[in-house]
Amino acid sequence: MLSDIERLYSINAMNMKRSVIRDLLKLTAKPEIISFAGGLPAPETFPVDDLKPIVAEVLEKEGTKALQYGTTEGDDMLKEQIIKFMAADGVSGLTKENILVVSASQQALDMVCKLFVNPNDPVIIGLPSYVGTISAMRSYSARTVGIPLQDDGMDMDKLESEIKRLVKESGPPKFIYVIPDFQNPAGITLTLEKRKRLLEIAYKYQVLIIEDSPYRSLRYNGETVPSIYSLDTEGHTVGLYTFSKIFCPGFRLGWIIGPAEIINKFVVSKQAMDLCTPPFSQKIAAYYMEKGLLEERIKKNVEIYKVKKDAMLAALDKYMPRRDDLTWTKPEGGMFLWLKMPEFINMDDLFYKALENNVAYVIGSAFYVNDGGKNTCRLNFSYPSLEAIDEGTKRLSEVIKEALKEHEGK
Amino acid sequence: MLSDIERLYSINAMNMKRSVIRDLLKLTAKPEIISFAGGLPAPETFPVDDLKPIVAEVLEKEGTKALQYGTTEGDDMLKEQIIKFMAADGVSGLTKENILVVSASQQALDMVCKLFVNPNDPVIIGLPSYVGTISAMRSYSARTVGIPLQDDGMDMDKLESEIKRLVKESGPPKFIYVIPDFQNPAGITLTLEKRKRLLEIAYKYQVLIIEDSPYRSLRYNGETVPSIYSLDTEGHTVGLYTFSKIFCPGFRLGWIIGPAEIINKFVVSKQAMDLCTPPFSQKIAAYYMEKGLLEERIKKNVEIYKVKKDAMLAALDKYMPRRDDLTWTKPEGGMFLWLKMPEFINMDDLFYKALENNVAYVIGSAFYVNDGGKNTCRLNFSYPSLEAIDEGTKRLSEVIKEALKEHEGK
Repeated sequence: MLSDIERLYSINAMNMKRSVIRDLLKLTAKPEIISFAGGLPAPETFPVDDLKPIVAEVLEKEGTKALQYGTTEGDDMLKEQIIKFMAADGVSGLTKENILVVSASQQALDMVCKLFVNPNDPVIIGLPSYVGTISAMRSYSARTVGIPLQDDGMDMDKLESEIKRLVKESGPPKFIYVIPDFQNPAGITLTLEKRKRLLEIAYKYQVLIIEDSPYRSLRYNGETVPSIYSLDTEGHTVGLYTFSKIFCPGFRLGWIIGPAEIINKFVVSKQAMDLCTPPFSQKIAAYYMEKGLLEERIKKNVEIYKVKKDAMLAALDKYMPRRDDLTWTKPEGGMFLWLKMPEFINMDDLFYKALENNVAYVIGSAFYVNDGGKNTCRLNFSYPSLEAIDEGTKRLSEVIKEALKEHEGK
Repeated sequence: MLSDIERLYSINAMNMKRSVIRDLLKLTAKPEIISFAGGLPAPETFPVDDLKPIVAEVLEKEGTKALQYGTTEGDDMLKEQIIKFMAADGVSGLTKENILVVSASQQALDMVCKLFVNPNDPVIIGLPSYVGTISAMRSYSARTVGIPLQDDGMDMDKLESEIKRLVKESGPPKFIYVIPDFQNPAGITLTLEKRKRLLEIAYKYQVLIIEDSPYRSLRYNGETVPSIYSLDTEGHTVGLYTFSKIFCPGFRLGWIIGPAEIINKFVVSKQAMDLCTPPFSQKIAAYYMEKGLLEERIKKNVEIYKVKKDAMLAALDKYMPRRDDLTWTKPEGGMFLWLKMPEFINMDDLFYKALENNVAYVIGSAFYVNDGGKNTCRLNFSYPSLEAIDEGTKRLSEVIKEALKEHEGK
């Protein structure tokens, strides 16, 4: 046997961590458990029937092209559809040179870190933030600098003071990572005012903004806030988009938008990473969009998820104990709610009690890069049925009530 | 505009190079040019008609599963098929824990480098070698140590002396990269004797072997040589396989085999890279294999490519000038021939003359990490038609004859 394999691994590999969430998710797989832990879109939103004729058409009309290698940059027809899609969202003037088709957002995050991060380079991330981003950053040994989220998004004063500190200490951060719309995990949306402030800070300190927008099209209430990319007049923003939440995750498709110079560098990088995103899947997505089906699909998803979100909020109102130090977010879109418990409640520990009561959530601490978030958790409302949402929230409330009672008894 | 973007790029990004081949390939796109430059499988081998009912079946039977996120490890049904496929090739005892499904070989190469390579770590590569491997190594700032290829594969004496030198200098290399079967670009196969010697060296110096086998199933003459993985009794080998040349490239599917401990580390790494390989494509491949269609397909591909390979060898015999210092390989499989010209002929320069005569090849120097290979080139026989093979070889021979005449006139 090859002795002491560990010695062969790179420093980056040593910094990679197995996802805590993944290991916890395994515990939630029993049928009797109602899980709010996953981050999956609802299977009833997958356009299985619409896809049958489209896939047949792609094979019929473009078979040998769809099954061959494609360009690294991505399928032209798909890019044309993406340009239209982005224009409808207020991003005008995009050309094919501003777009790279990728294997969904997670690849985009990996590519961003590969392109910009040397070991120990500082990068800025709002806390709590999507675990996959933290994993990608770790896998390139980035120094993650966390900025706390407020109810209206990242704390901009804290952001600026941290950047100032970094500039003095070692140089500006490589980028500021934000999920401005219905952030994962907190469900919070960055206000227009703060988006403008963020851009000012980026211009002032010559920093790049990575705007991750997986849920942007899934708005259930309120007014759309312009994307940072659309507000940026100076080419400081790289935008990440995915089909996973508005079409389906099974094709692993997404796209990056940005200044042509940066996109070109991403292309060179992607050549060495996987040559190209699957042409077959790209063609399917392009045909689907060309027929106007994506817009329809998004409308339906918004209807389905709005009902589920409202159901979870109603269930929380109904079952949760009322206390000033027990709160949850009321997101206008996305797939998640964020619960904050009194400081003395440790949601990491309570996870196993919740499992005993046949309900699961994601521990909030998983979304931190420091020791924060022990009294928080994330609830997903997109996947479970309405019945499960009600019953699961009830079960969770029971667990919380029990914990509160125990604390009072001490 | 973001000023001086270059300053933001990582050191690895600075080391990434745009593929020379890609840029040259663009010049070969005119319809009048017969191109032996690409490395594409023949479109007539793509199973478009077989796939129509299979894709419909996958959507019908597994729609919501195939369109959802999948596990990072890969689809269980596909892994079962891969286990059977590998067993038929002499690799027995594989379990699902020894396999990771990936987005084809290029992703596997990227993952290998990410997992094992720190900047300036030595890695060993036969020269000439597949450009995509060199690109992946560069993108992690590896120190590539080239070992010349002989007619029966990598020079093992030179390999051992280089490893000895490295051990003394800074430590053993992270791995030895080999394409043992019908190597790209040279078409050479590593003999059984040398495979055993390679393993002895790997055991002695405790080095990992990366065995890249994209063409292994495409043997047209001679006897199959056991894979290094199947000969390895000590768990020193990681094997890379792809569906691109035996099924089709458009799904971007492949797999890695290796010791469970290493595969597990790859899984953690892949989580942060793209979460999972597309479940939809994995299901299609699994169904295709389960119906026994892959074996049939490979048999047909072997028939088609054997005829093309023989046609190219016959055309070279017919048209090329006869000289002792003008030779080409006679591969028993794969997709490429390798031509060696007299030392005074620079095939980099001649590329443009060839284009003028409406024929294209890949310059051999692209497959070197040093300044070697200027008098060599790679010819692809899998993609062009039989007529194009004859006519293109004739055109190339004219260009070579002209160059020889010019040299004699000097």
